[in-house]
Amino acid sequence: MNIQNQPYRTIWPAADGVSVEIIDQTRLPHAFLVARLANLDEACHAIRAMLVRGAPLIGATAAYGVWLAMLADPSRGSLERACRALFKTRPTAVNLGWALRRMSAWLEPIKPRQRAAAARERAAEICDEDVAINRAIGAAGLKLIAAIAARKKPGERVNILTHCNAGWLATVDVGTATAPIYAAHDGGIPIHVWVDETRPRNQGANLTAWELLNHGVPHTVIVDNAGGHLMQHGQVDLVIVGTDRTTARGDVCNKIGTYLKALAARDNGVPFYAAVPSPSIDFEVSDGVREIPIENRGASEVTHIAGASGNGSVETVRLTPEGSAAANPAFDVTPARLVTGLITERGVCRASAAALRRLFPDRAP
Amino acid sequence: MNIQNQPYRTIWPAADGVSVEIIDQTRLPHAFLVARLANLDEACHAIRAMLVRGAPLIGATAAYGVWLAMLADPSRGSLERACRALFKTRPTAVNLGWALRRMSAWLEPIKPRQRAAAARERAAEICDEDVAINRAIGAAGLKLIAAIAARKKPGERVNILTHCNAGWLATVDVGTATAPIYAAHDGGIPIHVWVDETRPRNQGANLTAWELLNHGVPHTVIVDNAGGHLMQHGQVDLVIVGTDRTTARGDVCNKIGTYLKALAARDNGVPFYAAVPSPSIDFEVSDGVREIPIENRGASEVTHIAGASGNGSVETVRLTPEGSAAANPAFDVTPARLVTGLITERGVCRASAAALRRLFPDRAP
Repeated sequence: MNIQNQPYRTIWPAADGVSVEIIDQTRLPHAFLVARLANLDEACHAIRAMLVRGAPLIGATAAYGVWLAMLADPSRGSLERACRALFKTRPTAVNLGWALRRMSAWLEPIKPRQRAAAARERAAEICDEDVAINRAIGAAGLKLIAAIAARKKPGERVNILTHCNAGWLATVDVGTATAPIYAAHDGGIPIHVWVDETRPRNQGANLTAWELLNHGVPHTVIVDNAGGHLMQHGQVDLVIVGTDRTTARGDVCNKIGTYLKALAARDNGVPFYAAVPSPSIDFEVSDGVREIPIENRGASEVTHIAGASGNGSVETVRLTPEGSAAANPAFDVTPARLVTGLITERGVCRASAAALRRLFPDRAP
Repeated sequence: MNIQNQPYRTIWPAADGVSVEIIDQTRLPHAFLVARLANLDEACHAIRAMLVRGAPLIGATAAYGVWLAMLADPSRGSLERACRALFKTRPTAVNLGWALRRMSAWLEPIKPRQRAAAARERAAEICDEDVAINRAIGAAGLKLIAAIAARKKPGERVNILTHCNAGWLATVDVGTATAPIYAAHDGGIPIHVWVDETRPRNQGANLTAWELLNHGVPHTVIVDNAGGHLMQHGQVDLVIVGTDRTTARGDVCNKIGTYLKALAARDNGVPFYAAVPSPSIDFEVSDGVREIPIENRGASEVTHIAGASGNGSVETVRLTPEGSAAANPAFDVTPARLVTGLITERGVCRASAAALRRLFPDRAP
């Protein structure tokens, strides 16, 4: 998508032919910096330290990390070591293992001297595949937005609420939850996005607001507490969120707080959709609330926050009294009964086991 | 309640006999400072600049402000001017006008040379009345907590979630939503409080956590997004919130985000109570969502936040990208259908017009 009228992806091979460039997301929204990854270690660090984040982008970065390792040493031992090192960076991201298994299966049978070139090609394919999935989600979700727009009076905007960042910054490009938003905006449908700030890591305020701002999509940042009130007063037409894992019956695991928005949407008759690329569907799991283990992250994400100080530097301040404990569950599960539908690359379906099986007969067990 | 094992109220006449002391709440939780109010102007400033906040405490501060004005000039003109000046400080707080009308009605018929002493007495009465109401709310709510504790296994704690600060810092002492919590803790019932940080002004993280910490009540700060997940996993036994205004049929207007917690409580069978001192019941209003105007506060409360920096000073940092708009509705309304009950100084009742009429036949029209 655009950054100050310039199209970008979140990752691309550098002009020097031997490194990869990424947007350093730890610096957003206060600074836009491109970082260069010149070897395997730097690729591992970029994932671990969250210079890149979002399951699809983590997978893409791992794939390019394998390429960088093959440039330095294309032996089979080097390939195995690279995959192991990359896999350990963020063990919970589904796409990471998936990308590494694909790279490894492709490269193993190939002669060492051809491995680097092949790795680069395959990494580029993984990236293009992600973008194609997201564009298909965009096209499917666009129909939902267009249908709402058709019922509006001339000049009225479609108000969409989103939580966290399932934007192009979480993917290679386009995003998942944002794909229908960008498709609508680029297609001339007047839209406005309510951006949940998404405490504690503020991915909404830091990343979603920044990418919408740069692409020129009208938006307003709100605290996570505000969405229910806005829905009570008819100010939200549609909720679209991303997902970290969606179960075989359509329970949606996503950033903490998503469940509260789904409850408010149900209570006010607002449609609630999750944008679900098929790699994030886990057909092995059914009851998300009971079966999905929820990561408890460090208390300091709750007790401290970083922001831009008056002089432009980024500073971290403490919010809570010293001595008060904090808990930090990172995700929650929205039961399928609260989900109006799932927007996948094969179209929109109900959040049910039967609907998911029909759409993905090749994936469902 | 206690601050480091020392009992405090939020406001008291100073030892010098001619001024009032308050806890400067703008400095909490990072510094505990007592401020002295020596005249009417300082009392007005304390309310306006939110050194004191919370409807009951605002009323009490206004009453003592009248005393300070009478010390300087006990004439009828001075009384009128003082009431006018104090009334203008925070025009939306219900208790402010109520306290000033009472002070004025009491003092007008009295001889000027007796007005200062009478004003001091009456201000003290208003404070004691507030504490008595809150203690009665505590006693009524204690029964709810004791009933839950009775069903627990030995050693298990009762987990109570609260939103914002309806604590003793919002009143003269004891608090409203916290009254049952302190009553239970002081009475030896093992409890633990989940403290919603309560963005954007973080009254939970700043004030509720601080007062529970100082009184020794076990508690954990969470982001506002987390409560639904905790309820899904059986980690919340009871929700108790305060209220800014409760309607004749039991709709509860309270800090933004309260409605989302009520929805989650309903979805998970968790009892949801509001602590409602009768002065905050508005018998003129029925449908809270339609009829109560919601204050939209400044965007900077969303875009910026203050906290303690590494060197101990309090600094303000910007959270959002420059150029992104922010909206800041300050309250929401929880419809009576989601409220298990109202804890008043006359006991617990259902959130319904009939139940409120039965409990307050003298107040209901």
